[in-house]
Amino acid sequence: MDIKNLITSDTFGFIAAALTTIAFLPQVIKTWRTKKAEDVSIVMLLMFITGLLFWIVYAIQAHALPVLIANVITFILNVIILTLKLIYGKQPSSSTRITQ
Amino acid sequence: MDIKNLITSDTFGFIAAALTTIAFLPQVIKTWRTKKAEDVSIVMLLMFITGLLFWIVYAIQAHALPVLIANVITFILNVIILTLKLIYGKQPSSSTRITQ
Repeated sequence: MDIKNLITSDTFGFIAAALTTIAFLPQVIKTWRTKKAEDVSIVMLLMFITGLLFWIVYAIQAHALPVLIANVITFILNVIILTLKLIYGKQPSSSTRITQ
Repeated sequence: MDIKNLITSDTFGFIAAALTTIAFLPQVIKTWRTKKAEDVSIVMLLMFITGLLFWIVYAIQAHALPVLIANVITFILNVIILTLKLIYGKQPSSSTRITQ
C-alpha cells in the first residue's frame, strides 16, 4: 500500500465530491432569484433525485460515510430545485399578465 | 466477506450510477429541442464539469473503471448542455425581436 498514492488519489476524490455537491447551490440561488426554472428538465431532476436515493441506500449498506454525506447534500439541493420549479411553474407569469 | 450483502450493496450502486449518469440526457434533449437554457445556471455547469474532471482523475489513479465510465459519460453530457447553452445564449431571441 503506497500511502503517497493513496493521499493523492483521495485528495482528487474529495475535491471532486465537494465540487459535484456544491455545484447545485448556484442553481438553487439562480432559480430562487429569477423565480424561473422552465428550461430545467423535470425528467432530469426526477431521474437524478431517484439516483441519489439509490446512492444513499448504497452508502448506508456499504458504510461509506463520505459517499453518504455528499449524496445527502446533493439530494437536498436537488429537491429544493425541483420544489422551486414546481412552485414557479404553477404560478401564472406576472410579466405575461401585465403585457397581455 | 458476505457475498449476499456485497451483491445487494453493489446492485444499489449500479442502479444509482446508471440513474445519475443518464439523468442528464433528458436535459440535453430538452435544451436541443427548445433551443433555450437561460434558466440553467452556468456556474452550476462549470463547477459540475470541473468536479467531474476531478472524478475522472481520481478514477484513473484509483483504477476504478465503473467510476471512470460513469463520470466520462456524465462529463460528455454536461459539456453538451454547456455548449448548447453558450450557442443559444449568444443568439438574439427571435420572439423578442418580433414583439419589440
